[in-house]
Amino acid sequence: MDQRHDRIKLTALQERVATAEQAASWIKDGMAIGFSGFTRAGDAKAVPNALAKRGEKESLKIDVYTGASLGSGTDGRFAQAGIVQKRAPYQSDSLMRAAINSGEVQFVDHHLSQTAEWVRGGVAGPLDFAIIEALGITEEGLLIPTTSVGNSAVFALHAKELIIEINTAQPAEMEGIHDCFEPGALGKRQPIPLVSPRDRIGTKGIPIDVSKVKGIVWTHQVDSPSPIEPPDKETEVMAGHLLNFLRGEVEAGRLDQNLAPLQSGVGSVANAVLHGLLDSEFEGLELYSEVLQDAVFDLLDSGKALFASASAITLSKPYMERIYQDFGRYRDRLVLRPQEISNHPEIIRRLGLISINTALEFDLYGNVNSTHVAGTRMMNGIGGSGDFGRNAQLAIFVTKSTAKDGRISCVVPFASHIDHTEHDVDVLVTEYGFADIRNLAPRERAERIIANCVHPDYRSQLQGYFDRAIAQGGHTPHVLDEALSWHARYTRTGTMLKNST
Amino acid sequence: MDQRHDRIKLTALQERVATAEQAASWIKDGMAIGFSGFTRAGDAKAVPNALAKRGEKESLKIDVYTGASLGSGTDGRFAQAGIVQKRAPYQSDSLMRAAINSGEVQFVDHHLSQTAEWVRGGVAGPLDFAIIEALGITEEGLLIPTTSVGNSAVFALHAKELIIEINTAQPAEMEGIHDCFEPGALGKRQPIPLVSPRDRIGTKGIPIDVSKVKGIVWTHQVDSPSPIEPPDKETEVMAGHLLNFLRGEVEAGRLDQNLAPLQSGVGSVANAVLHGLLDSEFEGLELYSEVLQDAVFDLLDSGKALFASASAITLSKPYMERIYQDFGRYRDRLVLRPQEISNHPEIIRRLGLISINTALEFDLYGNVNSTHVAGTRMMNGIGGSGDFGRNAQLAIFVTKSTAKDGRISCVVPFASHIDHTEHDVDVLVTEYGFADIRNLAPRERAERIIANCVHPDYRSQLQGYFDRAIAQGGHTPHVLDEALSWHARYTRTGTMLKNST
Repeated sequence: MDQRHDRIKLTALQERVATAEQAASWIKDGMAIGFSGFTRAGDAKAVPNALAKRGEKESLKIDVYTGASLGSGTDGRFAQAGIVQKRAPYQSDSLMRAAINSGEVQFVDHHLSQTAEWVRGGVAGPLDFAIIEALGITEEGLLIPTTSVGNSAVFALHAKELIIEINTAQPAEMEGIHDCFEPGALGKRQPIPLVSPRDRIGTKGIPIDVSKVKGIVWTHQVDSPSPIEPPDKETEVMAGHLLNFLRGEVEAGRLDQNLAPLQSGVGSVANAVLHGLLDSEFEGLELYSEVLQDAVFDLLDSGKALFASASAITLSKPYMERIYQDFGRYRDRLVLRPQEISNHPEIIRRLGLISINTALEFDLYGNVNSTHVAGTRMMNGIGGSGDFGRNAQLAIFVTKSTAKDGRISCVVPFASHIDHTEHDVDVLVTEYGFADIRNLAPRERAERIIANCVHPDYRSQLQGYFDRAIAQGGHTPHVLDEALSWHARYTRTGTMLKNST
Repeated sequence: MDQRHDRIKLTALQERVATAEQAASWIKDGMAIGFSGFTRAGDAKAVPNALAKRGEKESLKIDVYTGASLGSGTDGRFAQAGIVQKRAPYQSDSLMRAAINSGEVQFVDHHLSQTAEWVRGGVAGPLDFAIIEALGITEEGLLIPTTSVGNSAVFALHAKELIIEINTAQPAEMEGIHDCFEPGALGKRQPIPLVSPRDRIGTKGIPIDVSKVKGIVWTHQVDSPSPIEPPDKETEVMAGHLLNFLRGEVEAGRLDQNLAPLQSGVGSVANAVLHGLLDSEFEGLELYSEVLQDAVFDLLDSGKALFASASAITLSKPYMERIYQDFGRYRDRLVLRPQEISNHPEIIRRLGLISINTALEFDLYGNVNSTHVAGTRMMNGIGGSGDFGRNAQLAIFVTKSTAKDGRISCVVPFASHIDHTEHDVDVLVTEYGFADIRNLAPRERAERIIANCVHPDYRSQLQGYFDRAIAQGGHTPHVLDEALSWHARYTRTGTMLKNST
């Protein structure tokens, strides 16, 4: 088998090839497993598929740890088969979401930079298996990741045994773009020597303990494409507001034309906002992000962006076809790192990032909900938004001002769940404008948010709430009986609008 | 004047001595001022006093930036005189609090590690004056701070002019315990080279631009003592629970007998918990904290603690008399740093701190309120609790289970204000026990919190809420109409207890 020699250069491992079904049979009830995969990219595909099939026939419960969301329908298959006891730290699948919201799956919604610490300390796990997708294994015993690094390095280091899926459908030209750095045990750490998004500080693959490799499975299956939508009129307007804010920062002397390294969250809105930079005057851009979506490659193509660092590449179908066909073009301008490093507070603070993430809703005082619909039902998870928002130079949150055809206002009296507190949020953007709430007291923030962000249909309703709240006093005025009434009304009547009840 | 030569070694400055009244007269309406002072320690005293007097007679509004809380009654005097427009990032004075809650003073409740970034970028300010307490000025032009460093270095660097108060009542033996490090502009930073609480990485004083020194004022006035209460029976019990948790971590192999560098927040409960370590088996302790309270000196005296790093020393009256009389004993075991460094996410994450802070209340799912009574009225501010909690190895929050003679439950269905989200909180402690909520889903956390933390008088009431919430479903179950009803009931009837209404 040529293929085998080509991709498994460490001879000792060439005899460990197994089928996906064999590998899946090694997983026992009650085990904790670390899977590769981050924003649908670089997830193990064949073994999870075989495992889901097993789960359809027999009683099996496992704890599933990943980088972030899995592709290939895996989370959905797992949920349908009912094999997941615990799931962490992020997911974005509708069936898994339903299982989480019914209480069947215990979901731990965790900052993406921090799960590695829990794995290291055994707070999460201990992991019985790590199942990691790879381009191949080098002679020196380095596992070369594919389209994401995620938590694969820490999973491989701490799991008792290792199953490697070598995916021949992933672009082989990716070898060399990864930079794997292990910070080591707490209390014995040196500074992380990264001072620019371009810095390489680790190894080009994940060092593995060969004796732990239980099996190697062949796969040939591309990543699931990102369901990202192209920019629309509203997201273009939002991008315009954000650019105006950034222009103000340049005028104030806090940024120059190269801005600062940019981070942009998952999803269509964040992608569209980044896309807006294409026709702007800004140039020489760099990205230090967790995921590189479509817009980043347009920025690289145009020469606007010079370099991009992240933990994963997640593209829509047309972009995937275009970019991966000619990946060599981008090799020297990209690096993929463990999510612990792409999202590390030390680096985010040092580089002074501009962080742009999507909100589900925010309130009068700048508290942001990124995760829960009506305060109770999980959407996807906090992901890296907290890692970036807390430590960035600028924590910017974007959302359309309404959802569900206007029946939900995304600007509310009191956020029904809080993922980013008033202390952490710098700028809020909707299609109506931006509110720069830095160095403002809560009442000042409320005035600016009502003036600049709320949808006109909800403006007087929100102003009315604020007026009644102020009459009761306090640093952060609220009418406690009314604070969550918009969400309760939506749950009851299907709209947050007062006069339609 | 011998005194002058002794303390102002830089000859060029010896002629700039002024009275407090002269210095206060330089402050103009609308100015932004950075004052030294952190947890009542090392605050400028004479000039603020003269300024408050001016404010009683004339119309004057200024923005007041500090390290953290001021002593010497300054915040109260300022509030009474009505001279404060904006106040940031922390305060703990009852009169200032009233002015904040009435909306008269615009208070910006900010992470203590982050205000320096806003000063550097001009988001806060630009500062017209920095008014800094000092032990003296060296020949090389270093301003030697007193009992706190706080934001003094960044204020001195960025303010247009400088007023220095040399306080001869502060222990002169403190010279040499400060370590002033300036990280420099964002985007051009190197790693902060601190890998142990003992490391010295800066200068023994704050480098000042001599041409900016407008005046030097003599003062002889000790810091306001801390109003800390000695440990009582309940806080001893809480300390016991916390120690039991830590013992479990040692058993699990995550900590050893030296634990990890400790941070302990402001206040009696946090002090008492630290005090509990005195009679424990733990030893060789180090502290990397923002403020050193009474208990730290007992730990140093007993040999249990070997070294302590912070931004300020704040002691009760008896401790102040004892410690400052013989400060030479402690000199080699202490270092005081800028609050940006004592509270820096880079260092907190690297060192793997155990962080212990006080909560006002927490909810079923582990969200913590550190600042707002009944969701609206500001108490003191978030201080450093967010800096530490977010990035520590262990984010522990402690509170008695009830307040106001049992009329308030500190464990509630929905935190009425959220300063630390469910993603950031590891362990909750009351006098009834501890809840280790790491790697748990919300429903699992709720069960543990009800079982271990809530006061028995509220247990069935909270369980009832949780049961009704679960019946409605969701990842984080809530009954939206009821979620804030405990606070609303307290506001209306004076108690959160259901059957007493």
